[in-house]
Amino acid sequence: MSIQEESLKMHKENRGVLEVIGKIKLETKHDLSIAYTPGVAEPCLEIAKDKNKVYDYTIKGNTVAIVTNGTAVLGLGSIGPEAGLPVMEGKALLFKKFGGIDAFPICLDTEDPEEIIRTVKLISPVFGGINLEDIKAPECFYIEKRLKEELDIPVFHDDQHGTAIVVLAGLYNALKFVNKKLESVNIVINGAGSAGIAVCKLLLSAGAKNIVLCDKHGAVAEGDTILNPAQAEIAKSTNRDIQRGTLKEVIVGMDVFIGVSAPGVLTSQMVSTMNKNSIVFAMANPTPEIMPDVAKEAGAAVVATGRSDFANQINNVLVFPGIFKGALAVRTKEINDEMKLGAARGIANLISNEKLAADYIIPDVFDPRVCESVATEVMRVAREMGLARI
Amino acid sequence: MSIQEESLKMHKENRGVLEVIGKIKLETKHDLSIAYTPGVAEPCLEIAKDKNKVYDYTIKGNTVAIVTNGTAVLGLGSIGPEAGLPVMEGKALLFKKFGGIDAFPICLDTEDPEEIIRTVKLISPVFGGINLEDIKAPECFYIEKRLKEELDIPVFHDDQHGTAIVVLAGLYNALKFVNKKLESVNIVINGAGSAGIAVCKLLLSAGAKNIVLCDKHGAVAEGDTILNPAQAEIAKSTNRDIQRGTLKEVIVGMDVFIGVSAPGVLTSQMVSTMNKNSIVFAMANPTPEIMPDVAKEAGAAVVATGRSDFANQINNVLVFPGIFKGALAVRTKEINDEMKLGAARGIANLISNEKLAADYIIPDVFDPRVCESVATEVMRVAREMGLARI
Repeated sequence: MSIQEESLKMHKENRGVLEVIGKIKLETKHDLSIAYTPGVAEPCLEIAKDKNKVYDYTIKGNTVAIVTNGTAVLGLGSIGPEAGLPVMEGKALLFKKFGGIDAFPICLDTEDPEEIIRTVKLISPVFGGINLEDIKAPECFYIEKRLKEELDIPVFHDDQHGTAIVVLAGLYNALKFVNKKLESVNIVINGAGSAGIAVCKLLLSAGAKNIVLCDKHGAVAEGDTILNPAQAEIAKSTNRDIQRGTLKEVIVGMDVFIGVSAPGVLTSQMVSTMNKNSIVFAMANPTPEIMPDVAKEAGAAVVATGRSDFANQINNVLVFPGIFKGALAVRTKEINDEMKLGAARGIANLISNEKLAADYIIPDVFDPRVCESVATEVMRVAREMGLARI
Repeated sequence: MSIQEESLKMHKENRGVLEVIGKIKLETKHDLSIAYTPGVAEPCLEIAKDKNKVYDYTIKGNTVAIVTNGTAVLGLGSIGPEAGLPVMEGKALLFKKFGGIDAFPICLDTEDPEEIIRTVKLISPVFGGINLEDIKAPECFYIEKRLKEELDIPVFHDDQHGTAIVVLAGLYNALKFVNKKLESVNIVINGAGSAGIAVCKLLLSAGAKNIVLCDKHGAVAEGDTILNPAQAEIAKSTNRDIQRGTLKEVIVGMDVFIGVSAPGVLTSQMVSTMNKNSIVFAMANPTPEIMPDVAKEAGAAVVATGRSDFANQINNVLVFPGIFKGALAVRTKEINDEMKLGAARGIANLISNEKLAADYIIPDVFDPRVCESVATEVMRVAREMGLARI
């Protein structure tokens, strides 16, 4: 049976993958009177007196909403809130498994950014954090910006920042392996949607200087009239030589290729025109921009993909459980660039110099140290910057 | 330690009472590829092709939103969405324990009915049913009406209908015990909020003819200018003699007192003016309108309260798990009066003539037959009326 058939069968047999259960037993009338009436009136009254106590007496402090409207689900496009639900359920499963966090899918039947913003604000009393997921660009930028400004709980668009953090983590180690510096390498990022732009921004924050962002039309260059506002902004700090041309033209002399684009768009010939000891992150899912063996044969020193059946899986699951675990633990309102950089370092540093290899630049998704390390970095930065609220 | 102290301690130690867990194990990369990418794309695509398949591949078919805005929480009043959360969590616990249903609290930070309606519609893709809870009257009537019209999943305001069903169930058996007929008894319902009005409506649907609804101002009579729209409507089919006066005046010659009002408002003297073999349901929480021993000494033949430490506990938990279990099982869009009457009969009939007693007119909340019996009635009526969608 294929993975696809197996997944369909499993989802059907279980009717979804999540359940909501009690943390406590409920066997006697006494149990009932503690968990429900009349006893439950007491925590209610305490919270009514001091709203902040909602963190003491309820699930809020460990609960995250996974919010989507189904407009950019996996690589499947705008398939709607119902069709996006299996992904959100799977994500909730990962939140629990890797971060011990209770996450619940909120799939919104609207494409109107203002409605999404308003709805998330209205439902926010129950949640300690908001994970935005699979909302298409450019709306996702605006929605996240507004929610960060208007909510007092952390808001994190995982497709952007989770991807950026795990890419940076892998890149730190890949560069260490080939003995190059982030500040001096030439980087092409292929894919100028929300993930590509977020990767670009975080690499700039981390010190990268020479980045060219490409989309299907070719290099994104300042002054181009077809750019959306997010692309136009990033064009001001990338591609300073104002190169134009296709990926094939741009990739010549690059050290690093980062693909968040489409299957097969990177050819063996293109890799062969990159600098010596090149690094290829081909993260299109499920089929990468180039297959690892092909990229290596063409000269790439380090290859990573998004897939679990190849070495070096660049997967957001290394990031979001720890990001929220740390943020919830210190009750920080924001997840800022310093925390993201710390998280990337926290992941990269788990691989010692002795173990670092072309096929081992990023920890395994089941490595139990990852979530702790990311959470610890988020907490550390939050405390240092005075952003921890407990 | 008091129940109050114990509840506070329990809620604090556990930080709320719910958690969201996986139905499946997640131990290997293979597990991950089935529950999440790449396998999860397959159920997504199936649902994208046919939205109705969301019931096959996701949690929707067994998941209920418990929606409140915290404006009428228990007897505590308008304490807000955060302070209402412990009640909603407790309710979710009961949904799982008694009905096997996954329920999740949605506490909305708004008092605007239009915003509540819109938000519930927007989040509805994930849910198979909507349980409205602790929203104040008269807004609750309008919100429920609109949502019933505009959503294709069942909507049930438990404070109204759950209460009405369990009261009718108890009343069926209490009347059988004292050998009186619902059609001919005189009934006073004290409390003209959402619960009192819903009880009144369901008793009328069940065949009761002589009901007087009272509130703190006294009997609700057609033509009174202080009535809200819901009260004005119910006044057309109750109190046909257009009696006026306080509860003390109205209760003379009544067979049944149903209190959804306030502690201590029913005195021994009042009960003594009721007809012989009177029935007193004193359901104010946590302190009843009259204590059971006092009511009995004053002549009541059957006394019930909302409390677990007295006999005959009239508690919604006998109702809502089975109502939703049945509605979800046949995927009915509406929960109508016929289903409510069936559910009340289903509960009442669990007590055989041999076991029926003044202190045993209603099953115990832990009686495992209750949920099944209610669900069976809902399914039966749905099928008979052509409202079952599977």
